[in-house]
Amino acid sequence: MKVLGIDPGLRNMGWGVIEVDGPRLRHIGNGVIRSVATEGAGDLGARLSWLFRGLCAVIAEYQPDAAAVEQTFVNKDASGTLKLGQARGIALLAPAEAGIAVGEYAPNAVKKAVVGVGHAGKEQVQHMVRVQLPGVEFDSADAADALAIAICHAHHLQGRSMRVVVAGSRRGAA
Amino acid sequence: MKVLGIDPGLRNMGWGVIEVDGPRLRHIGNGVIRSVATEGAGDLGARLSWLFRGLCAVIAEYQPDAAAVEQTFVNKDASGTLKLGQARGIALLAPAEAGIAVGEYAPNAVKKAVVGVGHAGKEQVQHMVRVQLPGVEFDSADAADALAIAICHAHHLQGRSMRVVVAGSRRGAA
Repeated sequence: MKVLGIDPGLRNMGWGVIEVDGPRLRHIGNGVIRSVATEGAGDLGARLSWLFRGLCAVIAEYQPDAAAVEQTFVNKDASGTLKLGQARGIALLAPAEAGIAVGEYAPNAVKKAVVGVGHAGKEQVQHMVRVQLPGVEFDSADAADALAIAICHAHHLQGRSMRVVVAGSRRGAA
Repeated sequence: MKVLGIDPGLRNMGWGVIEVDGPRLRHIGNGVIRSVATEGAGDLGARLSWLFRGLCAVIAEYQPDAAAVEQTFVNKDASGTLKLGQARGIALLAPAEAGIAVGEYAPNAVKKAVVGVGHAGKEQVQHMVRVQLPGVEFDSADAADALAIAICHAHHLQGRSMRVVVAGSRRGAA
């Protein structure tokens, strides 16, 4: 099973794909889709279109079975939150259009799944991404964050399938 | 020339299409794309996908030459702003994917273009939409807002083409 993690941003959209084989995780690919500013009134639409097409290309190439996006808030100002929301809409749309259900995780849930605690620093998260995905290389923090989100979703899916097994074994008692 | 106005929202996405023929405006169509809640983790992606496909269908049917979206902020809470941003990303993406440049206007700019003042109420805006688009009928405030955005963009485009003419007539003096 392949899981796509997406770290949404209007300028830099990080992505990472991992393979989940029972309890083992394997790195498949990661990168950043960078939108460039164009001139004129259609700039924002063009940026979003670029990000959407980039994500659709990643999905077409790696054919993930599941996807997850970080549930981030920018509390600093409404303008920043609106921008992030626009990028996040694209990050949610691209997998949905490919028929892939998209999980959402709060930043603390991602950190807890990867590091073990909810308030870990960037370096700690990147270190544990390297530990859990042997041989992984990434050029940017956005791609590392995307891999962390994919790991979080993998843990969640593994936990859920375990719960399904438990429920099955208890069927007679229900 | 046909102009599409979009009033973005995660539950209700208002749209309105008008025809611009010199100084005359004509109503072509309006409506609301309503996204319904689905169960499970993929709910938001499914909603956005539904809105995206609805807007793409409107664009395919009416073939607008230009589009505009309202530049709204929800200052009440970051969660609401993020949701609106996600819907807004879809509203900007759909025309961009069809090769249509998307204008953006602050709510006050829309009101000023339609009513003449920046701080008009909903009823006043709807009244002036009816005055400027004879025979128009709309069932929802979201569709009326979308038509107001289209009128605003039409005024802007008319103003710009007038400036182009003026610039042309002054070419000798440059």
